[in-house]
Amino acid sequence: MLEKRLYQHAQSDIYPFHMPGHKRRLTMANPFEADITEIEGFDNLHHAAGILKEAQEQAARLYGSQYAYYLVNGSTCGILAAVSAAVSRGGKILVARNSHRAVYNAICLRQLKPEYVYPQFTNSGLQGQVTASQIEKILEQDEEIEAVLVTSPTYDGVVSDIKKIADTVHSHKIPLIVDEAHGAHFGFYPSFPENATKLGADLVIMSTHKTLPAFTQTALLHLCSERVDRTEIERYLSIYETSSPSYILMAGINRCMCMIEKDGEFYFKEYDKNLKAFYRSVSDLKNLHVITREDFTKKEAWDIDTGKILTGTGGYVTGAALKEMLLCRYRLQTEMACGNYVTAMTSILDEPSGFERLSHALHELDEELADKEKIPVITPEEIYRSPRKVLEPSEAGEAAREEVLLTEACGNIAADEIHLYPPGIPVIVPGEQLDAQLVETIERCLAQGLEVEGLSEQMRINIVKM
Amino acid sequence: MLEKRLYQHAQSDIYPFHMPGHKRRLTMANPFEADITEIEGFDNLHHAAGILKEAQEQAARLYGSQYAYYLVNGSTCGILAAVSAAVSRGGKILVARNSHRAVYNAICLRQLKPEYVYPQFTNSGLQGQVTASQIEKILEQDEEIEAVLVTSPTYDGVVSDIKKIADTVHSHKIPLIVDEAHGAHFGFYPSFPENATKLGADLVIMSTHKTLPAFTQTALLHLCSERVDRTEIERYLSIYETSSPSYILMAGINRCMCMIEKDGEFYFKEYDKNLKAFYRSVSDLKNLHVITREDFTKKEAWDIDTGKILTGTGGYVTGAALKEMLLCRYRLQTEMACGNYVTAMTSILDEPSGFERLSHALHELDEELADKEKIPVITPEEIYRSPRKVLEPSEAGEAAREEVLLTEACGNIAADEIHLYPPGIPVIVPGEQLDAQLVETIERCLAQGLEVEGLSEQMRINIVKM
Repeated sequence: MLEKRLYQHAQSDIYPFHMPGHKRRLTMANPFEADITEIEGFDNLHHAAGILKEAQEQAARLYGSQYAYYLVNGSTCGILAAVSAAVSRGGKILVARNSHRAVYNAICLRQLKPEYVYPQFTNSGLQGQVTASQIEKILEQDEEIEAVLVTSPTYDGVVSDIKKIADTVHSHKIPLIVDEAHGAHFGFYPSFPENATKLGADLVIMSTHKTLPAFTQTALLHLCSERVDRTEIERYLSIYETSSPSYILMAGINRCMCMIEKDGEFYFKEYDKNLKAFYRSVSDLKNLHVITREDFTKKEAWDIDTGKILTGTGGYVTGAALKEMLLCRYRLQTEMACGNYVTAMTSILDEPSGFERLSHALHELDEELADKEKIPVITPEEIYRSPRKVLEPSEAGEAAREEVLLTEACGNIAADEIHLYPPGIPVIVPGEQLDAQLVETIERCLAQGLEVEGLSEQMRINIVKM
Repeated sequence: MLEKRLYQHAQSDIYPFHMPGHKRRLTMANPFEADITEIEGFDNLHHAAGILKEAQEQAARLYGSQYAYYLVNGSTCGILAAVSAAVSRGGKILVARNSHRAVYNAICLRQLKPEYVYPQFTNSGLQGQVTASQIEKILEQDEEIEAVLVTSPTYDGVVSDIKKIADTVHSHKIPLIVDEAHGAHFGFYPSFPENATKLGADLVIMSTHKTLPAFTQTALLHLCSERVDRTEIERYLSIYETSSPSYILMAGINRCMCMIEKDGEFYFKEYDKNLKAFYRSVSDLKNLHVITREDFTKKEAWDIDTGKILTGTGGYVTGAALKEMLLCRYRLQTEMACGNYVTAMTSILDEPSGFERLSHALHELDEELADKEKIPVITPEEIYRSPRKVLEPSEAGEAAREEVLLTEACGNIAADEIHLYPPGIPVIVPGEQLDAQLVETIERCLAQGLEVEGLSEQMRINIVKM
């Protein structure tokens, strides 16, 4: 039974450097007792007028937004609703290419025509920020664009200059949507970036479960201006989100907001102290390298989230291999491996002992790896390119399709998205042309132990039937 | 704090004749301990290949379907995915008019052209079944229809003849989708109807939380044939459902399936005994009337779900007033009031004492009401009519709109859906024309204490701008 396995896992000595941010350290009584439906006195999420309205107002207050919406279908439904409300059907949207697949799903559902702003790559081959000047250049050339969407912070913790981007976007009289799924903890302590809700973004979507102590699948959507119609937001939320929202999940968001409001200062101070001690302790690594603010130029990243601990493998092993060593030998479960690094996610509920275990493990591995020969590990820069767009994503997604071997797909147009999961950022979007380099990239990703979605087990891929 | 209020409520003496079906009688340890993300060994719902694949296979086995999908965004996302996968964009679908708003949302999202089959009204003014011959007549006349969707059982527990409908629909070589949100408990005991999964339906969506012991917001989607492409179903589920599904919710579905598989026979036997005793005990009511199979002709309902206890007010009070008396005086929380009846929802986890309390309350009220004069309570037959369609729902939903007073809306075209919640069945669909009778109906619903959604607090309504 799944339940038994989950509680067994909770009893194990494996330390969770992954989502959700509560790190399994909070307690709640028997959840079945709290699991009700919309009975008298408990309001209705889709037409909140009582206890849920107050709860959402508290969240708006905390983040400085005009309206906050509790989401029980994750940031996914917040992104679908924000994009649907901000752009007319078939309209144009400018999105950062390193957006989550939910953004591309919204594009397909609403038959939008995307333009892309590509993040530049950093020295270490990570995807960096997108800039206001990149966006300005595109908006200047295309007056039909109805909204801009950027992801900040990224899964890697790279933050863009939202204030400047918002000013640019607003000068074109259109709204800015920020996918801040990984930034719900921003804005509560000086050592973390300010929250996009306070920097001029019009719509901000944030997962409460990713970086704050709340249940998986919970999130918030903030409306911060009048640039997008509130009734449209609410209409689309009621479409993309269950009509039977879970009171357990909602109680979890509410508990999280109360915790931040009441004791946020205390928790973030401790968190900051733990993180600083950790980064100091790993600054002497010689082969592995924990990425810090100093690894980014101001051009590469406006800021970074130090809560995301990215350990570069130095090319001695693949990210997947390092992730496995951390898990099997040190009982440290990290969040994600990419070709040349591993990501550990932290939150205000991480313990000093966890950080110490991670530091210890990295030091031991650092010594071991010194004897190894370097191997060609794949970098995000090699994975995330800019394939040629032939059809709009929705055209390709709904066209007649056929399945072919990946190796025989060159020259054809992708009918499905292909992405690594995590992070869920597309390598190729439906409607784009597959080329030899991309096929090779996918093969290399697989060979290096990364999980590629969009392929069948038989290494087949859906292409648009010509 | 919401959490505190929920646990306070759980400690009260109010008996839950409402969803979810676990009736707060199951127990689970601290849910935070079980709340993880897709780490090693715990599979990935959107590409299940391990423990979640096995869990879903168990559900398919139990219901006799080919594939079962765990849903953590309620039946809502199952309906959106089923309709999206079965009908091409802009295509035609035949739906039972008494469908849940999720069906209409799917129609708008995918710009479908709906045709309606209207359920006939029963003697007591309830919405009855839809029949194979009604469907055959429409399919004969319109070869462009790509799929048929019916709701069985309805919120009121009315069951249609799915076997015959499936045969009819299949003779036109198109698939049948059954919204069985209220029928997850069907097929496990002779006194309940057979499940649509075994009667020829191609896609069946069922809420596990409504009539079985599982957490709110959980559901299953079953694919029972090859008439709809499995990869399309999976593609749309990954669009409409969070990419961070809750392991608590999934563990809850799994626990429910294990409970039914292992001890279903025992639980349903007890349940049946409790229901039979209850129906016997209320057969002597003189003014109130608990609806039974005998109240339906075979023409009105193919079968009914006796698990739904519908008490007709006899016109002595409104449904809303009866619901309130049951709650305030007898501490019995029922699920729903309509104009002339109240619905109590039951499940295998209801206790004999609950049924006894309900029977006792109804008997006391039955005597009291004898002295009252009858009032004109509104019936579903008066509420659910067939307004004239002027625009397709998606056209009206996305057209320029303006807000006017309901009383001044006559002759205009609705831009939003208006429905009572519960049950969430539309009184008018976007694109249909408002007339004086409909305006009066809505006013009567409000006057009788029913919750009308789609109106602002100032009794204003969105119409298509002409």
